[in-house]
Amino acid sequence: MAIITLGTMAFDAIETPFGKTDKIVGGSATYVAYAASHLTQPLQQISIVGDDFPQEEMDELKRRGVQLEGVEIVKGQKSFFWSGKYHLDMNSRDTLITDLNVLADFNPVVPEEYQGADFLMLGNLMPSLQLSVIKQLKQRPKLIVLDTMNFWMETAMDGLLEVLKKIDVLMINDSEARQLSGEYSLVKGARKILTMGPRFLIIKKGEHGALLFHENEVFFAPALPLEDVFDPTGAGDTFAGGFIGHLARTKDISFENMKTAIIVGSALASFCVEKFGPERLKEITKKDIDDRLNLFVQLVNFEISLT
Amino acid sequence: MAIITLGTMAFDAIETPFGKTDKIVGGSATYVAYAASHLTQPLQQISIVGDDFPQEEMDELKRRGVQLEGVEIVKGQKSFFWSGKYHLDMNSRDTLITDLNVLADFNPVVPEEYQGADFLMLGNLMPSLQLSVIKQLKQRPKLIVLDTMNFWMETAMDGLLEVLKKIDVLMINDSEARQLSGEYSLVKGARKILTMGPRFLIIKKGEHGALLFHENEVFFAPALPLEDVFDPTGAGDTFAGGFIGHLARTKDISFENMKTAIIVGSALASFCVEKFGPERLKEITKKDIDDRLNLFVQLVNFEISLT
Repeated sequence: MAIITLGTMAFDAIETPFGKTDKIVGGSATYVAYAASHLTQPLQQISIVGDDFPQEEMDELKRRGVQLEGVEIVKGQKSFFWSGKYHLDMNSRDTLITDLNVLADFNPVVPEEYQGADFLMLGNLMPSLQLSVIKQLKQRPKLIVLDTMNFWMETAMDGLLEVLKKIDVLMINDSEARQLSGEYSLVKGARKILTMGPRFLIIKKGEHGALLFHENEVFFAPALPLEDVFDPTGAGDTFAGGFIGHLARTKDISFENMKTAIIVGSALASFCVEKFGPERLKEITKKDIDDRLNLFVQLVNFEISLT
Repeated sequence: MAIITLGTMAFDAIETPFGKTDKIVGGSATYVAYAASHLTQPLQQISIVGDDFPQEEMDELKRRGVQLEGVEIVKGQKSFFWSGKYHLDMNSRDTLITDLNVLADFNPVVPEEYQGADFLMLGNLMPSLQLSVIKQLKQRPKLIVLDTMNFWMETAMDGLLEVLKKIDVLMINDSEARQLSGEYSLVKGARKILTMGPRFLIIKKGEHGALLFHENEVFFAPALPLEDVFDPTGAGDTFAGGFIGHLARTKDISFENMKTAIIVGSALASFCVEKFGPERLKEITKKDIDDRLNLFVQLVNFEISLT
């Protein structure tokens, strides 16, 4: 089943306690595509780049079943660029540079050939752009997943609340859930957020795993304890790509299957952080992914016999 | 199978964002006993109190199969008293008062009738006292579990390193694991700590669950997402009591059974935090515990089929 992804295709320059990179390819839609392409095709990107975005990256994505008709290439302009530095705990980072470049005038257009897609992944972007893509779709996708961040809660809350009414799954981190709900308790916060539109809420807690809330149910997914996190950039987008990729591959959007999808997303994210950029996502094979999924099963498996 | 527990029996005065108490009964050995007594008997306490410690509390413990021959009662002196105030996140707290009282001269003596116990739970105390109890036992218990804290790493590291060589399971929280190992990565830190003596390491992460490390294996236990944490005091000791209580009840100290024991400990701890002090641990029934264990199964259960 086809997945439309709205997001950035961009450059990042990253500094971590383990090293630093010059400009490398990044962006939410890039990570989603590399992750989901291990699970399903086609992937239909909606993004914008300058003419500096490497042709070989486009070719690599196409080889993996990623359609790029919805990626606008603006001649004579530069792609979005972000530069950041991670602290030792890898959960917090400082943004050093944000050059919007082409993103400043992004007006996403859904190509005719994308119409009819069953899945829509709205990457972290201005809520009005996310809403615009939903409105352009003639037939509502079976599942709309949205990623957002604290920045939009501070600068575009009205737009965010509007788009939340139109989606099925919201993905945010724990501090964003507290900010959006005004509740410190994640359980109380989740209950409040589930009245704002989404029927499913995923709260990402980085190295502490993720929680999935739906009606009165909750699922706790572990994160794999890692020896080293080399570069966390893109881990959240990779998680999203693995999540929606699994749902599309299995054609099943039940709560039960979403639990599995979170494990698949976590497994892919655990590869992403092993090298700078999406490099590791390009290298891994189906066997690598299966082996890692088995690690997750071992990680949380226990026996309870009530006697 | 009998469990000897070394720890405090004391008074606490607690302030949380939800309320405050006057002096109420607390202490690590008290929480361990109330938790473990739901699972196994006898429990053999080693502690010290003043003559202010309530007789009705002693009677209640005895009714639950807790032996008190090893609890020294010092006439004319007061029991250990701690007072603290929790911050909103409930993970951090300020100590307001620490009155050692009888604890200042505590010299634990193992009663003859405790000899031969299969399990030893060394609650958080000065390492030399923990070591003294180990040395007094004529027959080494099948399993020795030790709880400690950052304070002893700062003030009695030599003693701590000595006692670590003699135990099987170490329980500490994530920041203590980082401090003890000098490693930020918990995986690297765990590997280092497992060379210091203990064959099993449990890293407690509060609302984020717990990790169990053994040789090259790791198990991730969730914490139940709670709507409100009313009072976290004693949660770690309750976890310890549930953990060792399950192992004693099932007479099985394998890695596999320790996974289950961690879930049992987490379930009991999730009750402990619902009211001030050990109150909730006195109220709950076997059915309450079984129902909560089922919640844990639902919380982490997922299906992976690799196709």
